[in-house]
Amino acid sequence: MTDPNTPAEAPRPPGPSAAADPLAVPWLDAVRFDAAGLVTAVVQEAGSGRVLMVAWMNREALAETVRSGRATYWSRSRGRLWRKGESSGHDQSVREIRLDCDGDTVLLTVEQAGGIACHTGRHSCFFSRLDDGRWLAVDPVLRDPRSFYRESE
Amino acid sequence: MTDPNTPAEAPRPPGPSAAADPLAVPWLDAVRFDAAGLVTAVVQEAGSGRVLMVAWMNREALAETVRSGRATYWSRSRGRLWRKGESSGHDQSVREIRLDCDGDTVLLTVEQAGGIACHTGRHSCFFSRLDDGRWLAVDPVLRDPRSFYRESE
Repeated sequence: MTDPNTPAEAPRPPGPSAAADPLAVPWLDAVRFDAAGLVTAVVQEAGSGRVLMVAWMNREALAETVRSGRATYWSRSRGRLWRKGESSGHDQSVREIRLDCDGDTVLLTVEQAGGIACHTGRHSCFFSRLDDGRWLAVDPVLRDPRSFYRESE
Repeated sequence: MTDPNTPAEAPRPPGPSAAADPLAVPWLDAVRFDAAGLVTAVVQEAGSGRVLMVAWMNREALAETVRSGRATYWSRSRGRLWRKGESSGHDQSVREIRLDCDGDTVLLTVEQAGGIACHTGRHSCFFSRLDDGRWLAVDPVLRDPRSFYRESE
């Protein structure tokens, strides 16, 4: 659906640019980005079915995810595209993408590199369970985050 | 964590009201509601592990979900609390609630009444799969929505 010869590193034109624009594809028009240009992305692990994390995608992040087969999100805190695993090595190979009935949420099925999706070193970001009026961290830290974040080294 | 004698139908006081306020509980303070007072709620089916839907909760919806054991959301389109199944009969019994690492998304594990979460009569709202540049509806309609929405009768 996009030109396979377009290098991933090609700078995006600042405005609409007709045929060369990899974001000008009909399937993207079916996605209902919100006023901030974002959709919710739920990330589920292939095989285990565990929900690993929830993130945000803009049009470019979703197009890049489809083009590359690697999950790419929009970081609201950093204000830029963020390829999952770019600093931790824990990238996500995307097996399937689904859209919900009102078009404002995508569901990715992924294979999670290292078996660790969370920046805390846990399998899933959803490691806290409500238990008798308290949130309990019920999943173990599999690896010390200091060992996989280059920034922390 | 809330007074079990408080009837579900009790009108909520307009402002903070100290000890009687069922929303004044510490576990709710750990949830990071956004500027609109909402968190994302991902809903996963117990047993199958299917992600059924994504909705929104405000503080009151989350408290009511915990109090009642039935999933209750905030309807952004209707501007009011919405107990899932109140018109369709397809309610959700909540088995577990998890919170993610940054506190702005909850994950509910539910038993889905009727095996139908989607207003289209499908099992899951995520019935469209991206397939070679097109969204394909790959899951069947299990029941005609006109048969379970009272409004349509």
